[in-house]
Amino acid sequence: MRVRHKPWAAEKLAEYPEYAITDLIDLKGKWQSAFKKKGPLHVEVGSGKGQFIVGMAKQNPDINYIGIELQTSVAVMALDKIIEAELPNVKLLNTDGGLLSDYFEDGEVDRIYLNFSDPWPKNRHAKRRLTHENFLDTYRKILIPKGSVHFKTDNQGLFEYSLASFSQFGMVIDQVWLNLHDSDFEGNIQTEYEEKFSSKGQPIYRVEAHFPSK
Amino acid sequence: MRVRHKPWAAEKLAEYPEYAITDLIDLKGKWQSAFKKKGPLHVEVGSGKGQFIVGMAKQNPDINYIGIELQTSVAVMALDKIIEAELPNVKLLNTDGGLLSDYFEDGEVDRIYLNFSDPWPKNRHAKRRLTHENFLDTYRKILIPKGSVHFKTDNQGLFEYSLASFSQFGMVIDQVWLNLHDSDFEGNIQTEYEEKFSSKGQPIYRVEAHFPSK
Repeated sequence: MRVRHKPWAAEKLAEYPEYAITDLIDLKGKWQSAFKKKGPLHVEVGSGKGQFIVGMAKQNPDINYIGIELQTSVAVMALDKIIEAELPNVKLLNTDGGLLSDYFEDGEVDRIYLNFSDPWPKNRHAKRRLTHENFLDTYRKILIPKGSVHFKTDNQGLFEYSLASFSQFGMVIDQVWLNLHDSDFEGNIQTEYEEKFSSKGQPIYRVEAHFPSK
Repeated sequence: MRVRHKPWAAEKLAEYPEYAITDLIDLKGKWQSAFKKKGPLHVEVGSGKGQFIVGMAKQNPDINYIGIELQTSVAVMALDKIIEAELPNVKLLNTDGGLLSDYFEDGEVDRIYLNFSDPWPKNRHAKRRLTHENFLDTYRKILIPKGSVHFKTDNQGLFEYSLASFSQFGMVIDQVWLNLHDSDFEGNIQTEYEEKFSSKGQPIYRVEAHFPSK
C-alpha cells in the first residue's frame, strides 16, 4: 500500500502505548496480560489502514485483536480509528509479518487473518507472498493446534497460488468462497481496498484453512 | 445431460465390442490387455458425448482412455466419434461411476478426469456429487499411489465444494485455475458443454489434486 510518508508517524504511535505496541516492549508469551479481558487472540498480518481489524474488534468484543503493519505511515491511520473508537480489544504492532515468531510464543495465537496481501505476481518474488510456505511455517508455530488462517483477496493469481500452497503445506481447506459478496457469508467486515474494488464488480475470493494437529 | 431416448442405443454399443465394453466382459485387473498397446490408463467419469475423451485419445496416442457414461443414449454419441476416428486407445464403459471398484482393480488406474459433473446444488443431494467423499474413496482405491484427479467445471458452487472436499479427504491440491480459458494452460480439450458455456463468458474452473501415498 502506498501512502504519503509521515515523518511524525512513529512518534504518534509511541504516544499511544495502550493501542500501539512498540518493538521495545516484549510481550512474547504474555499477550493475554496486555488486554483488559482475556480472550482468543486473532492476528491480522498486513492490517493496513485498519478498517478490518477495528471493525472486527467492534463486532466481537470478547476477542482480542492485533494488527501487524510494517509501514509506520499506514499503521498510524489505523491508530486514529482505534483512538476514535476507544476499543480495549485491539492493538497495533508496527513490524514485519515475517518476524511473527519473535513476537508470539508457540501456540499463543488462535487465528490469523490475511486480507488483500500484496500478490507479488512474478514467480521470482513468490517467497514474498504472505501465503508462501515460509510464512505458513511461521503461522503454524505461533498458532494453537488446528489453528486457522482466514484469507481474502481480489487477486485471482494469488488466490490460485494460495490454495495450492496451503494444501501442499499440509493445511486442510475448510471452506472456499469464489464470490464472497454474492454469497450467504454473514458479518463480513470489508477492508478499505475491498470496498473500492468490489464496487467495480471484481469478485472477492475467500478461504478458511487450518493446520493439522501438531 | 438430457438427450432424446434412443431405444436402439444398447444394441449399437453391443455391435462395437472393440470400442464399447459391456458389463458382461470382466476386464477387472486386465485392462492393459484390452488395448493394442500398453500405457497409462486414464478414466473419465461422466464422459457424455465423448468430445473430451476422444480429443484426449487423439492428442495422446500412448495413453489408454476409458470413458464411463451411465446414459446409454449419450454413450452411443461418443461411440460414433470413436468409430469415425478409428482410435485404438479409447473405450467406453456404459455403467455407473459409483461402481468403479467393480470394474477396476486396486491401483489399476493412473488418472481420473471429471468434467462438468452434475452440480447437485441442494445440500441433501451432496452425496450424489462426483467429488463427494464417497466417490473420492472409490477413486483412491482404483488409482495408483499418488494418483490424481483432474476436475473442471463452470459451476461455482460445485467448485467451492470440491476444493474443500478434496482437501478434507486428505488429497493434496497441485494446481488451481479460476479462469482456464484465460490462462497459460496448454492443450486443453474442451467438452461440448464447455464450448457452449465458455463462449458466454462463463469462467471455467479447473483443479489438479492427488491422493497421498497409500
